[in-house]
Amino acid sequence: MEITLIKNAEIVTMNADEEVLCGDILIEGDVIAGIGKDLQESRAHRMVDAGGRTVIPGFVQTHIHLCQTIFRGRGDDLELMDWLKNRIWPLEAAHDEESVYYSAMLGIGELIQSGTTTVVDMETVHHTDSAFRALSESGIRALSGKVMMDKGDEVPRELQEATERSVMDSLDLLDKWHNYDGGRIRYAFSPRFAVSCTEELLREVARLSKERQIFVHTHASENRGEIAIVEAETGMRNVVYLDHLGLANERLILAHCVWLDEVEKRIIKEKGVHVSHCPGSNLKLASGIADTKGMLDRGISLSLGADGAPCNNNLDMFQEMRLAALLPKPFHGPTAMDARTVFRMATIGGAKAVGMEKEIGSLEVGKKADLSILNLEDFHTYPMHGVDPISRIVYSATRADVESTMVGGRFLMENRKMNTMDKAVVLKEADVSIKRLIKRTPVLT
Amino acid sequence: MEITLIKNAEIVTMNADEEVLCGDILIEGDVIAGIGKDLQESRAHRMVDAGGRTVIPGFVQTHIHLCQTIFRGRGDDLELMDWLKNRIWPLEAAHDEESVYYSAMLGIGELIQSGTTTVVDMETVHHTDSAFRALSESGIRALSGKVMMDKGDEVPRELQEATERSVMDSLDLLDKWHNYDGGRIRYAFSPRFAVSCTEELLREVARLSKERQIFVHTHASENRGEIAIVEAETGMRNVVYLDHLGLANERLILAHCVWLDEVEKRIIKEKGVHVSHCPGSNLKLASGIADTKGMLDRGISLSLGADGAPCNNNLDMFQEMRLAALLPKPFHGPTAMDARTVFRMATIGGAKAVGMEKEIGSLEVGKKADLSILNLEDFHTYPMHGVDPISRIVYSATRADVESTMVGGRFLMENRKMNTMDKAVVLKEADVSIKRLIKRTPVLT
Repeated sequence: MEITLIKNAEIVTMNADEEVLCGDILIEGDVIAGIGKDLQESRAHRMVDAGGRTVIPGFVQTHIHLCQTIFRGRGDDLELMDWLKNRIWPLEAAHDEESVYYSAMLGIGELIQSGTTTVVDMETVHHTDSAFRALSESGIRALSGKVMMDKGDEVPRELQEATERSVMDSLDLLDKWHNYDGGRIRYAFSPRFAVSCTEELLREVARLSKERQIFVHTHASENRGEIAIVEAETGMRNVVYLDHLGLANERLILAHCVWLDEVEKRIIKEKGVHVSHCPGSNLKLASGIADTKGMLDRGISLSLGADGAPCNNNLDMFQEMRLAALLPKPFHGPTAMDARTVFRMATIGGAKAVGMEKEIGSLEVGKKADLSILNLEDFHTYPMHGVDPISRIVYSATRADVESTMVGGRFLMENRKMNTMDKAVVLKEADVSIKRLIKRTPVLT
Repeated sequence: MEITLIKNAEIVTMNADEEVLCGDILIEGDVIAGIGKDLQESRAHRMVDAGGRTVIPGFVQTHIHLCQTIFRGRGDDLELMDWLKNRIWPLEAAHDEESVYYSAMLGIGELIQSGTTTVVDMETVHHTDSAFRALSESGIRALSGKVMMDKGDEVPRELQEATERSVMDSLDLLDKWHNYDGGRIRYAFSPRFAVSCTEELLREVARLSKERQIFVHTHASENRGEIAIVEAETGMRNVVYLDHLGLANERLILAHCVWLDEVEKRIIKEKGVHVSHCPGSNLKLASGIADTKGMLDRGISLSLGADGAPCNNNLDMFQEMRLAALLPKPFHGPTAMDARTVFRMATIGGAKAVGMEKEIGSLEVGKKADLSILNLEDFHTYPMHGVDPISRIVYSATRADVESTMVGGRFLMENRKMNTMDKAVVLKEADVSIKRLIKRTPVLT
């Protein structure tokens, strides 16, 4: 068993008391075995001198589309439904095994570099095995699943699925990948959104989620056009409809939730549904500004996600935290969302959203060693004297301040060097992949 | 005369045709002497291989308070008037020569690191000579001036000025620093805002600005509380009042302009006043979201600024560009503000705001060599194949992607190494300074 001792760090624990300590972290295998002053460990294989460094829990992003990373920069300045029909669906339809793999690797590289250690990822209809391979090789922690979409106009033929086949393919992937590598990788059923799924499919997902205790990850109430379609087809608002089908429970992660009404907010709270707030994507697709203050006031489970690269265009928790803190202020006053509340959403809040608050989301003895080491010794993060470290992290720091990232006791990036992928190869193959996809995509050539 | 040849770059010129070229940039002394393919220059003292790099015009930030940089992290979650009265004014009152110097150096270091080459800076009442010394030594291009404030309740004694003295001190600084170093440093009269200035002072500033052809840099229409005070005192809205005093002309830079009414917008357009949009600060102080689309539609001169570190908390043009592009979309649709429009505001738009569009703001022969070299070879800026470089810069890049920054032919940062300041010393002295200031500030101890 690998033993690592991180010495002399400022440790932002995010434990129940949200303590910030100065000291050492002892890691045995994939778990934190000790946190304290002057820890000694003669068995340690590795000592990391973190003097002058700040150690934080790894970020948990609860809504990401890794299969879209190579579409970055190709969907600017479009609204959700146009963006899907004219860019994202045609490009997803053109994907092959290799392009899905490198798209995932490109995104995971960015996530690790910016301190995210766990993602909830939605893939495309096909080739999801490649994405799981990338997740597996990269060392990141993830819930992922193939997207399910058995309904809808203007969907490219390659993405149209029969209901039964969609479920079968999902179950095949689940059997292969759920709880892979000691539970580092988990499966999540991923129906795209109510617009793209039949009632039959959603009911079956609800049944299987309960039977197998598997998370469901979908979009809801992102855009007024989408809501109008769902209302026209079902007579119900998004969350009411999902609840009606048996999906609203503590295993459901809903991305966006920009336009919830009071009834929907009540269902989400009462049933323990988790909302993934995506402020960057919600702005870029002109979807709106979610009422996060209202959700927090009600005690709704709130976490953060960057969504896909073509609607953000980053997968960077520092940018999402900054937006999450700033956006409510002009509407609800300067104290509406402080740095600490947002940092909580980015760490332990994300852990709760994936049902792993006993394993990740804070730095505590017995939890997984998922963390990053920040170097805040720079112009933009100074002065440090007497400044709340969480203010420095949320309002001043940026992704390049992450020096090292560890998942389950293993450094995936160490002093900015990637340990589980060759960056040059990933960049080159991502470029080769998108070139090939565009050739196959008549609407874009 | 120093001659530098930058080879094999992607060059985002921002010339009239907004051309993006591949080739070389020849720099003789402080000006660009050539841009083109395969430039040869046997006299070059220095060759920079910029293969795989992107060269952009240096950013122009038209609203910055360098004297506040060491207050970073000490004014979170407050509204404008509380933020001024309980944090910023007491801290400015405690400033000394050394703290003003290191506050400026800390901010300038951050600006250079993130690709800003020109700033419009507002200092505090005293010790402004120290700030000019920092500007001078650092090599950055700047318009700066001491703040003028001869009126107002709850202003610490140290910041209260007699009208005549405020003008005399300004003129002394002007005589010493205006057009220093071949015009790299210029003076700007800096009345704080209508709330802090008597009518007499503002009229005198208007007169001197005309007589000496000196820019005026102030705040207006940032916050509804401020507007109410000005209306109660003068019976006029901010911009109407400033116009009434003879200040509204092409030498006036107005920071914020969040709550302009139609009459004010018309005055700004007709008189050629320049608006400095500060999206990050406007969110953080809960001021509001400026109607930049409406201003651009009217043809108003619009540029960007990060404001001071304690209300942002960064001085980073990449963050301001991103916000400037994203914020209008949920209100006006996804095409309301595209990457190119924002990049224009950050470069040539800023140059116009300071009356220097013939000298800076774009990469063209005969203009000053103010530029930065970006390394976009990273996960978060990939793929590159076929992606608009301006989308990559505005929506994907961040400050750490700036590899080198040049002002007037001189590299102030080269391959991330600062050439005109010792970073470790500046960080340490910034910390020492704020510690000393806090001891002097009863409200904070």
